[in-house]
Amino acid sequence: MHSPGQLQGLVTEALQQIAFPDLPSRLYDPVRYMLGIGGKRMRPVLVLMGCEVFGKPPALAINAALGVEVFHNFTLLHDDIMDAAPLRRSVPTVHAKWNQSIAILSGDVMFVKACELINGVENDKIRPCMEIFLRAAREVCEGQQYDMDFESESIVSIEQYLEMIRLKTAVLLGASLQMGAVIGGAGSEDAAHLYDFGTNLGMAFQLQDDILDAYGDAGKFGKQTGGDILSNKKTFLLLTALSLANGDTLLELNNWITLPTGQFNPAEKVDAVKSIYDKLGVRELAEEKMQELYDHALNHLQAIPVDDAHKKPLRTLAGELMVREV
Amino acid sequence: MHSPGQLQGLVTEALQQIAFPDLPSRLYDPVRYMLGIGGKRMRPVLVLMGCEVFGKPPALAINAALGVEVFHNFTLLHDDIMDAAPLRRSVPTVHAKWNQSIAILSGDVMFVKACELINGVENDKIRPCMEIFLRAAREVCEGQQYDMDFESESIVSIEQYLEMIRLKTAVLLGASLQMGAVIGGAGSEDAAHLYDFGTNLGMAFQLQDDILDAYGDAGKFGKQTGGDILSNKKTFLLLTALSLANGDTLLELNNWITLPTGQFNPAEKVDAVKSIYDKLGVRELAEEKMQELYDHALNHLQAIPVDDAHKKPLRTLAGELMVREV
Repeated sequence: MHSPGQLQGLVTEALQQIAFPDLPSRLYDPVRYMLGIGGKRMRPVLVLMGCEVFGKPPALAINAALGVEVFHNFTLLHDDIMDAAPLRRSVPTVHAKWNQSIAILSGDVMFVKACELINGVENDKIRPCMEIFLRAAREVCEGQQYDMDFESESIVSIEQYLEMIRLKTAVLLGASLQMGAVIGGAGSEDAAHLYDFGTNLGMAFQLQDDILDAYGDAGKFGKQTGGDILSNKKTFLLLTALSLANGDTLLELNNWITLPTGQFNPAEKVDAVKSIYDKLGVRELAEEKMQELYDHALNHLQAIPVDDAHKKPLRTLAGELMVREV
Repeated sequence: MHSPGQLQGLVTEALQQIAFPDLPSRLYDPVRYMLGIGGKRMRPVLVLMGCEVFGKPPALAINAALGVEVFHNFTLLHDDIMDAAPLRRSVPTVHAKWNQSIAILSGDVMFVKACELINGVENDKIRPCMEIFLRAAREVCEGQQYDMDFESESIVSIEQYLEMIRLKTAVLLGASLQMGAVIGGAGSEDAAHLYDFGTNLGMAFQLQDDILDAYGDAGKFGKQTGGDILSNKKTFLLLTALSLANGDTLLELNNWITLPTGQFNPAEKVDAVKSIYDKLGVRELAEEKMQELYDHALNHLQAIPVDDAHKKPLRTLAGELMVREV
C-alpha cells in the first residue's frame, strides 16, 4: 500500500510526461499552463487508491487517474470563464492571460485529452470506466448550472443545495474511486460502495468548507474568513438560517443580505450575521449534517469485504480531510 | 443498400429519440434547441454509409452516428460563441438566446453526451471507435485554433490553409466514415481508405465552397456571393492570388484588402478583386486543386475490395456534392 503522498508524487510525475503537441501553440500552451498551475491532485490520487483497495498496483490505473485530473482542470478552466475570475491560485486565469475564445477551445481540447487517457485503460474496462466517468462529467455540468441558477434564485432549499454540491463536487470524487475500483478488479457492488464513500465524503468536505469560511482561523484556513457572508453566498449556513429565522431575526438577516456593498461595514456584517447563525444554532446543524455524511462515508468503506489494511489509507485520508482546524 | 435520403430519415428519427433530462432546464433546453435547428446530418449519414459498405445494417452504427452529430453540433455551438455569431440558420444562436456561460456549459454537456453515445457501440469496437473519434475531435479543435490564428496573421501559405480546412472540416467527415467501417467489420486498411476518401472529399467540398462564394449563382448557392471577398477572408482564392500577384496587381489587391469598410463600394470591390483573380487564373487553379482532391477521394474508394454495388451510394453522393452549380 502507498500513502496518498507517494501516489501524489506518482501522479505529478506522470502528468508532466503527458505529451501535448507544440502546435497550434495558442491551443496547447494554455493547456500546459493550466495543468502546471498545480493543485492537490486529489482526484487522481483517489483513482489510484481505489485500485489499491482491491490489491492491484496503482500503475494499472494511472491513465484513468490522469484522465480525471485533466478533466477536472478543464472544468476549472471553463468555470473561470463563467465566473469571470481573473486569478486562480494567484496566477492569471487562461481567459485573462490569453483570451476567452482560446480559453473555451483549449478547455475543449483538454476534455478530448481526458477521454483519450481514459480510453487507455485495459480493453475490458473501457466501457465501465467511460460510463462512470461520463456520468460524473455530465453531473458536474448539471451541478455547475444549478450553482449559476442559484445566484439569481431568491429561494433555494437545503435539499437543492445539497444536491448541487453533490453534483458539482462530490460525484467526481466518487467516480474517481469507483473507476479505480473497477480497474482494480472490484465487483460492481464493492465499486459502488467506494463511489458512495467518495460522494458522502465530498459533501462532508464541502460543508466543512462552508463552516470554515465563517468560523475558521484565517491563519490555518488559508483565506480570510467571512467571504461567503460578505458575498451573500447561498451556503448551507445561510440557507439553514433563512429556513429557521422568523420575525425580527428574519427581517434583520434579510436586511443584511440585501444591503448594497458600500452601505455597510464588512466586519460588522460578518459579526451580525454570525450572531444570527449562533442564535439559530446554524453551526451545530451544519456540523451535525457534516458528521452524518462522514459517518455514511465510513459505513460504505466498512462494507467492502477486503482486508482492513487495504482500506486504512482511505480511512486515514478521510480523517485528515475532516480535521482542518476550525 | 440505403440511399443517403433514407439514412438521413433514420438519423432524424433517432436524434429525436435521444432522451435528455428535463433539469436543469437552462442546461438541457439549449441542447435540445441546438439539435433542433437542423442541418443536413451529413456526418451521421456517412457513419451509416461507412457501415453499409461492409455489408452490415446501418442500425448497428446508429449510436456512433448520433455521437458524431451531437459532437458536430457542440463544435458549432462553441464556434458561434468564438465568432460572436448572432444567428445560425436564421435563428438566434444559443449564446444570443440565453447567455454565454450557458452556451459554454451546454456545449460541454453535449460533448459528454457525444462520448456516451459512442461508448454505446459494441464492446470490441469501443476502443477503436473512441480513438478515431477523439483524434478527429482533437484535430477539429486544432483546425478552429488555426482558423482563428489566421485572422490576425498577415501571411498564410496555401499549405497552411489546406491543413486548416483538413483539420477543421475534413477529418470529422473522414472519421465518420472510418468509424462506420470499423463497426461494419472492415479491416484497418479498408477503414483507412474510407477515412482518406472522406477527408479528400471534405477538402474538395471546402474548396468548392470558396469558389462558389465568389463565382456562384446567388439563387442556386443560397447566399449572396462575394461575402468572402468583402470580409477579406483568407480563402484558397485570396491566398493563391496573394502568392501569384506582383507589381501593380499586388499593390491593387493589397489596396482593396486594406481599405476600411465604408471607404469602398461593395459591388465595386467584389468586381475588382474578381478581375484580379481572373487575370491570375486563380479560379482555374482552385478548380484544379479541387479536382485533384476529388480524384484522390475516388481512388481511395476504388481501392476498397468490396462489391462495387456497396460503394455506389458513396460515389453517387460524392458526385452530387461536387455538382452544386456555379
